[in-house]
Amino acid sequence: MDELAEEIRAHYCHVRQQSETMCEGLEVEDLCLQGMADTSPLKWHLAHTTWFFETFILKPFQEGYRPYNERFEYLFNSYYNAIGQQYPRPQRHLLSRPTVAEVRAYRQAVDECVLGMLDTPLPASWDEIRHRLILGLNHEQQHQELMLTDLKYCLSLNPLYPVYNGNDIPASQDTALTFSEFQGGDSEVGSSLAGHAATDINGFCYDNEGPRHRVWLAPFALADRLVTNGEYIDFIEDGGYRNPLWWHSDGWATVQSEQWQLPLYWQREGSRYGAFTLHGYRELDLAAPVCHVSLYEALAFAAWKNMRLCRESEWEQVAARSEATGHLWNPDCHHPRGATTNRTGPRQLFGDVWEWTQSAYSAYPGYRAQAGALGEYNGKFMLNQMVLRGGSVATPPDHIRATYRNFFYPKDRWQFSGIRLAYDL
Amino acid sequence: MDELAEEIRAHYCHVRQQSETMCEGLEVEDLCLQGMADTSPLKWHLAHTTWFFETFILKPFQEGYRPYNERFEYLFNSYYNAIGQQYPRPQRHLLSRPTVAEVRAYRQAVDECVLGMLDTPLPASWDEIRHRLILGLNHEQQHQELMLTDLKYCLSLNPLYPVYNGNDIPASQDTALTFSEFQGGDSEVGSSLAGHAATDINGFCYDNEGPRHRVWLAPFALADRLVTNGEYIDFIEDGGYRNPLWWHSDGWATVQSEQWQLPLYWQREGSRYGAFTLHGYRELDLAAPVCHVSLYEALAFAAWKNMRLCRESEWEQVAARSEATGHLWNPDCHHPRGATTNRTGPRQLFGDVWEWTQSAYSAYPGYRAQAGALGEYNGKFMLNQMVLRGGSVATPPDHIRATYRNFFYPKDRWQFSGIRLAYDL
Amino acid sequence: MDELAEEIRAHYCHVRQQSETMCEGLEVEDLCLQGMADTSPLKWHLAHTTWFFETFILKPFQEGYRPYNERFEYLFNSYYNAIGQQYPRPQRHLLSRPTVAEVRAYRQAVDECVLGMLDTPLPASWDEIRHRLILGLNHEQQHQELMLTDLKYCLSLNPLYPVYNGNDIPASQDTALTFSEFQGGDSEVGSSLAGHAATDINGFCYDNEGPRHRVWLAPFALADRLVTNGEYIDFIEDGGYRNPLWWHSDGWATVQSEQWQLPLYWQREGSRYGAFTLHGYRELDLAAPVCHVSLYEALAFAAWKNMRLCRESEWEQVAARSEATGHLWNPDCHHPRGATTNRTGPRQLFGDVWEWTQSAYSAYPGYRAQAGALGEYNGKFMLNQMVLRGGSVATPPDHIRATYRNFFYPKDRWQFSGIRLAYDL
Amino acid sequence: MDELAEEIRAHYCHVRQQSETMCEGLEVEDLCLQGMADTSPLKWHLAHTTWFFETFILKPFQEGYRPYNERFEYLFNSYYNAIGQQYPRPQRHLLSRPTVAEVRAYRQAVDECVLGMLDTPLPASWDEIRHRLILGLNHEQQHQELMLTDLKYCLSLNPLYPVYNGNDIPASQDTALTFSEFQGGDSEVGSSLAGHAATDINGFCYDNEGPRHRVWLAPFALADRLVTNGEYIDFIEDGGYRNPLWWHSDGWATVQSEQWQLPLYWQREGSRYGAFTLHGYRELDLAAPVCHVSLYEALAFAAWKNMRLCRESEWEQVAARSEATGHLWNPDCHHPRGATTNRTGPRQLFGDVWEWTQSAYSAYPGYRAQAGALGEYNGKFMLNQMVLRGGSVATPPDHIRATYRNFFYPKDRWQFSGIRLAYDL
Repeated sequence: MDELAEEIRAHYCHVRQQSETMCEGLEVEDLCLQGMADTSPLKWHLAHTTWFFETFILKPFQEGYRPYNERFEYLFNSYYNAIGQQYPRPQRHLLSRPTVAEVRAYRQAVDECVLGMLDTPLPASWDEIRHRLILGLNHEQQHQELMLTDLKYCLSLNPLYPVYNGNDIPASQDTALTFSEFQGGDSEVGSSLAGHAATDINGFCYDNEGPRHRVWLAPFALADRLVTNGEYIDFIEDGGYRNPLWWHSDGWATVQSEQWQLPLYWQREGSRYGAFTLHGYRELDLAAPVCHVSLYEALAFAAWKNMRLCRESEWEQVAARSEATGHLWNPDCHHPRGATTNRTGPRQLFGDVWEWTQSAYSAYPGYRAQAGALGEYNGKFMLNQMVLRGGSVATPPDHIRATYRNFFYPKDRWQFSGIRLAYDL
Repeated sequence: MDELAEEIRAHYCHVRQQSETMCEGLEVEDLCLQGMADTSPLKWHLAHTTWFFETFILKPFQEGYRPYNERFEYLFNSYYNAIGQQYPRPQRHLLSRPTVAEVRAYRQAVDECVLGMLDTPLPASWDEIRHRLILGLNHEQQHQELMLTDLKYCLSLNPLYPVYNGNDIPASQDTALTFSEFQGGDSEVGSSLAGHAATDINGFCYDNEGPRHRVWLAPFALADRLVTNGEYIDFIEDGGYRNPLWWHSDGWATVQSEQWQLPLYWQREGSRYGAFTLHGYRELDLAAPVCHVSLYEALAFAAWKNMRLCRESEWEQVAARSEATGHLWNPDCHHPRGATTNRTGPRQLFGDVWEWTQSAYSAYPGYRAQAGALGEYNGKFMLNQMVLRGGSVATPPDHIRATYRNFFYPKDRWQFSGIRLAYDL
Repeated sequence: MDELAEEIRAHYCHVRQQSETMCEGLEVEDLCLQGMADTSPLKWHLAHTTWFFETFILKPFQEGYRPYNERFEYLFNSYYNAIGQQYPRPQRHLLSRPTVAEVRAYRQAVDECVLGMLDTPLPASWDEIRHRLILGLNHEQQHQELMLTDLKYCLSLNPLYPVYNGNDIPASQDTALTFSEFQGGDSEVGSSLAGHAATDINGFCYDNEGPRHRVWLAPFALADRLVTNGEYIDFIEDGGYRNPLWWHSDGWATVQSEQWQLPLYWQREGSRYGAFTLHGYRELDLAAPVCHVSLYEALAFAAWKNMRLCRESEWEQVAARSEATGHLWNPDCHHPRGATTNRTGPRQLFGDVWEWTQSAYSAYPGYRAQAGALGEYNGKFMLNQMVLRGGSVATPPDHIRATYRNFFYPKDRWQFSGIRLAYDL
Repeated sequence: MDELAEEIRAHYCHVRQQSETMCEGLEVEDLCLQGMADTSPLKWHLAHTTWFFETFILKPFQEGYRPYNERFEYLFNSYYNAIGQQYPRPQRHLLSRPTVAEVRAYRQAVDECVLGMLDTPLPASWDEIRHRLILGLNHEQQHQELMLTDLKYCLSLNPLYPVYNGNDIPASQDTALTFSEFQGGDSEVGSSLAGHAATDINGFCYDNEGPRHRVWLAPFALADRLVTNGEYIDFIEDGGYRNPLWWHSDGWATVQSEQWQLPLYWQREGSRYGAFTLHGYRELDLAAPVCHVSLYEALAFAAWKNMRLCRESEWEQVAARSEATGHLWNPDCHHPRGATTNRTGPRQLFGDVWEWTQSAYSAYPGYRAQAGALGEYNGKFMLNQMVLRGGSVATPPDHIRATYRNFFYPKDRWQFSGIRLAYDL
């Protein structure tokens, strides 16, 4: 086995194991929950990420491969129309079979086949296989983030408030809201790696991150930290959820129809605020970043502050100068925390919460989705969704970078999503 | 312990064990399924039937009783508004906790307390307790039927078609459709036991079965057996689902909106028909009774035959002359079978399938629901639902009688419900 | 022309003119309103009642008749599947053409043809034509009631509260709530005329009113007058709309989902109650009968009173002894009024408001719908709806009798529907 | 009166009269139609455009002005939350009062007051009033376009297919699909007038058209004409509506849920295509531009062609070089026509159909909505909608320019919306 294959094998084992690790401490029953159509049972995530390797590597490249179970192609296909039809997404919780144990056996069987392919001599299509392996591992890491957010959503619907992580959440420190100024001008954003087969596990990016391209940015100021719970409570207590003037038209309609009065998971008792977390129900830490807000709420808050959210190009220009580290996935704490207080300048760009931008998720100039089923990975979602940047406490630490583009609908709140303010200079 | 207490103790152990027995062979995942709002997870049924004893016997009559878990009152209350609010029914599948194992522990703890009350000396309120015990066991038997029908519905949504019972279904024998004639006239129907506290486990009936009262019946003819799959296929192949003239107005609207073309669980491939059963997917037995039809379909079929369904009073007058036996719950076979061919006259009155009547479920003259939460058991459903009679293969054998009134909405199909024809003389 | 033809001609002209008279004072815009799917624009009623004569008399019996407009068969068919498909009911307001003027021309053209058929010599099929003419006129009278109730519903949605009738509503007099007792026993109800072709305009009844048949009635007491607004306010102020224990299960679900707190059209300001009427917005007259309640509300009120509603057979037995007169349609007042105070015994049996019964609308023993499209008139609705008796202020005075069965869904409130109490002796 | 006031007075009379002219030939019934929540009755448009002048000019600036009718503020407010609550949009068809005649009287009364303000001496706030007058007239012109498209939608639902314009639609000429190439680079787009009070009727633009700002454009090619019906039929007949691979994810979901198989208003009979138009039902002209497609369909078509739609900045850069003329509103023809064949290079940039772009409707850098109710005009819609450019046959000829940004949801089809192809160089 060559060195790269060795490196990929190790990474494969690490990432695959991580999905299992995240389920430790959970009951079989927990792994089957589907709280709404947008979320999937953890069992389904475990199976689907395995399906990805079986479908895109074993079936096309493993000679003589026989499908593990013919029906799994249908049951565990998420949205790849080029592969075939899919079991209806809102009904994934109705699949009691295969059981959790059977899904684990499926994982193991596929893992054995995949790892077998890495033994010398490497297969003829090694370049393509390697690219798909790296894509498949990044895919699984995205699902790891969804596993945590889906789990949180599902557990929150149980009045018993089950605890996923029994640790305390470290208290956050207050720090003033300051802004850094940037001159903008002629800039380049996006990744030049997009569209190229990854040659090593760090050389990967999604196709939607490129091509690298020129943009012109007007001068702007960007907040040095995320908006805190305390600041957001000021908005609430100023009647923010009752005043249509802060809201976009669709946002206000959503506030009315959904009867939103607080961020997702929050409860108010008198003048005290608490929230359900993966650590159980907790009193709100006022210095921690506000979390689980929709874009509608983020925009309303910014309007109330007489500011705006940043564009994704602005964010990227700033973030490109920082190291991609922060409060990312960590077994000890699954909740965002306040900015460090021992530094000035932009902080929390990576980790804690995904930051809503005012940029619609669309193709960069020159973008072309690749042909075939894998071209469905990103391209077909480039409409109606909005870009978030920077990763969260649910993002695996090696799965974030300055060019990374996440995307959700403006109404979505179940991700670890928060707010960073900006304004025009 | 007196003899009756002894008898009740034995029956209690038998019925409670029966709920557990029905779950044998199922996986934890299966016990958590909720296929639609009308069905509940088997785990929930196991907890709710336990909640019934805790709520109506232990809490009011066991001195010093401390609730097993304060939140269970909310989680496992089905519809008793006098007790308090209820966790939303359509979301019962979202309760991963308590787990199946925890629910079993809850069952065991409540059983121990209840059985402890039966030890001599009997409590002061023994008459009322005894009545509630017998009611609670009948309640649990009703849920046992629901457990099977809910399970069947949920498993049918899985393309893997899980098998609950691996036995073969015995083949049914053809037998001609004949009718018996009845002169009707001045009659009495209903149970004279209703409203009286049961003094033994066989002396029980629900309040909705009485008072016994006079009715006048015109002469009528009643089919000697149930309508078969073969006869129903004739209706289908004559375009029955495409011709509005056979249908009531609401029935036709439902056929259109639900795009019904076949009974629930059926599939047609070319000229062959099969159906999902608790024994897995099976080819249809043409001589077996048609099953899983709504009242709309039953009425349309009868109209196509230029006949009608019977009234519940007609059915009861005939059934009162028969022994209440037939293909009721039996571990060997969970599917209805054809009538016996070695007899003439009315057959299959009990068991196989519940028989839709043309009678609206309403209060008998003189009926009064009892005061308090237990008065919610039957009375508040006496609107918009229709009466079915006779029990099914899912009904416990000691849980059916001629006066027993079951009720569902005209559109409901997930019960073992079928058709018996009648006409005016 | 023979005498009966002469009588029918006069009645035809009278009834047809009455539909036009009811539109006087309304604007073209008012005639096009459709406030919900259950209501139809008055213009549509004017066209549909004309379509009835064209479809069931002119097309089959007028030799060489050419349809007035081929598309009208589709546009103005209400629900007769045997005739053909129907323009979707909820979209009737979308038919700006034909205009009101064009519909009036259609009415005139059909009237000329129909009246032409009555000239001597009478056609060969005179018996059938006569029967259909009388049916068509009764049909138009039913639509006249709907025209008023549909209009009221539509105008109520306009914050300008348009006034249909500018007269004052006479004040009602208080009179105590008393009951009359009836022994019941072996009785006969229903009409013996049903199923026979009417030989004169008074010899008509609908097929659903027969056959006349035997029933056995237990002794009962029936209120001598309708429930008043004042009595209903007591229920409201006792928290009736907030206490689930008074309600049937489906009723309580409706109260919650529709957020009902008052009868339809009512408003409360502080301790004062008012309601929109066809005379405009008015303060409530406490002695007038409560109106525009659903069956759910009627049953809840009766339960709160520890009483019940009557069965339709009970009502009919009592009403058969009275003359069918009361506050029926009258150009001076379109709102129900209190009972007369100068008499004792049962009053208001006819007129003011339709009285909800606890009887499901179903076929009488021996009922058979006639073959063909006219068999769809009543029979296919004999499911899910409940019987109301006695007519209302919107019922033409010659269109009510003791055997008359009206039917609506338990949730319906836009008819002039009210409450009469009963109890078991 | 000064010259500018004179010019505005003339323009006011012209625009206000134009709204009335568009209703000529329609019946009162037609003016009351509301085919879906997105459309409004023409009567409502006539009232709302009047309400705009009353609310934003007469009430604040006309001393001693008394509202024409206090309730109109509520009834005819479209979406200005700063003014107050609004009558629910989907129910506008339920307002039979005020009648059409009463709305015309309202128009006349407001016109008299407004024109009275233009008499010398001009009021003190003349600068602001002038700006609002010009805004109000542009507002009314936008509603004139909606009046036509709303009318078309409503009439299309009537199987009688009412004809609004009895003229023939001139036949279009075939012309090859060619592309022009553009080098892009550093560019400026947007209007420098935005945010400034208009000093004459031609100096107006909406606030969303500015600020003028720099963008960097990569080289691109733009089609010289719109996509034709014939080209779109090729897509249909290649199975375009059945192949998910051409569609964005939300587009495919919409195709499925709405069962789209053709553009709005189209019908196929065998191999022939026709469409409802404002000239009645017509056979499709293959050389005319395809019309009434959603953005989903436009994007799918472009993907099938292996091309893309343009960005709004690309379109504007090209359009800025052309005169803003074309098939815009014209009493003779209300349907788009093919490109002229006697020229080369980009054609049809203005008129015929609005051209979907791939640009999300969002704020230009530096955009700030103005304070108060008028700030709700555009800003609050800058989310979830997509930009269309160039005007249509329903756009008043003096109401379009290269910087004009129209916006609708991707699923919307009832505007005159079409497709222009582009690709990267």
